[in-house]
Amino acid sequence: MIDTRHLTYETQGDGQVIDLTADLNRELEDSDVSGGTVTIFVTGTTVGITIMEYEPGLVEDMKTLMGRVAPRDASYRHDILNNDDNGHSHTRALLIGPSLVVPVADGSPMLGTWQRVVLVDFDSHPRSRNVILQIMGE
Amino acid sequence: MIDTRHLTYETQGDGQVIDLTADLNRELEDSDVSGGTVTIFVTGTTVGITIMEYEPGLVEDMKTLMGRVAPRDASYRHDILNNDDNGHSHTRALLIGPSLVVPVADGSPMLGTWQRVVLVDFDSHPRSRNVILQIMGE
Amino acid sequence: MIDTRHLTYETQGDGQVIDLTADLNRELEDSDVSGGTVTIFVTGTTVGITIMEYEPGLVEDMKTLMGRVAPRDASYRHDILNNDDNGHSHTRALLIGPSLVVPVADGSPMLGTWQRVVLVDFDSHPRSRNVILQIMGE
Repeated sequence: MIDTRHLTYETQGDGQVIDLTADLNRELEDSDVSGGTVTIFVTGTTVGITIMEYEPGLVEDMKTLMGRVAPRDASYRHDILNNDDNGHSHTRALLIGPSLVVPVADGSPMLGTWQRVVLVDFDSHPRSRNVILQIMGE
Repeated sequence: MIDTRHLTYETQGDGQVIDLTADLNRELEDSDVSGGTVTIFVTGTTVGITIMEYEPGLVEDMKTLMGRVAPRDASYRHDILNNDDNGHSHTRALLIGPSLVVPVADGSPMLGTWQRVVLVDFDSHPRSRNVILQIMGE
Repeated sequence: MIDTRHLTYETQGDGQVIDLTADLNRELEDSDVSGGTVTIFVTGTTVGITIMEYEPGLVEDMKTLMGRVAPRDASYRHDILNNDDNGHSHTRALLIGPSLVVPVADGSPMLGTWQRVVLVDFDSHPRSRNVILQIMGE
């Protein structure tokens, strides 16, 4: 059985983290699939989906990490060749990735106590983001 | 067909790598699902699941990489706000992620010659880790 | 329903990016599975599968990122212990990973406008790479 759901988020970019666990829980509860997997997939190239403990300190620490490995003020060939300003956003998104698979049981994601499914938007400006939930199982 | 298996590992933290391929092979062999996918998922936020060639040199090289991008002695907002000591562990875990999907055929993971499925525990102290194997297919 | 497909690529290594989206589209179109997921999996330990906007600037920017976090001329225990020269390749591949799951609808991957599925080969010399497409659904 396959059940496809769509979620939309308005983001501020610049490393903003959005906790979508409540939306994920609600869509899974509403679905006829009770066991299997859910693929959480975002359709952009400057944004990622991952799991973290969601608290303000770690949101800042992720920005610091990304500033260290892909500084905003470094020179990016993407920006030069395309007259753009978000080379750092693309580069940072590569380290997180747009796809995450979580096992599902009894209509709920099998997350640990502190695990939250989050969207991280690295773009240089506000964006509207589409997230696909592909729920598969029985 | 869905088959859920649970594995538990006692880890030392600090970048310890545990090769769980033999356990994965055994659970898949034991399962009635012979073809499809297996999602390997760990339920913590300072630990990751990935694939690597498992040899002592690369275990050290991963620690060096992580020390470079998320130094243990840097200042972490997570530690300050929560009076904690594992901000670097959370940050490092973000770069690996807790979920991995491997194709399955004839009751075995379709791994390359040198590929091993590993758990990497980045926490600052020993932990007990729960790994879920969600086997799906026919 | 499960449909397994195999793709082979001859690569140059050293961070070469190969866009395999056209091959993915063709295999999905040819498959009897019209909705579900496709797992894209590469069977090496110095290579990754991810999604990016595929343009020459970002290919260079990814090389720069990887050179910053895992320099080619750093000392790697892998190289010392195994008399090898691709410790940086293994280390870089850890940050991308060998597995990616993309939702499928109407026989096509549900990719965003700029998203391309790519193989990135970090090895120090040319390689032949095997990619498995595990298509599951109905």
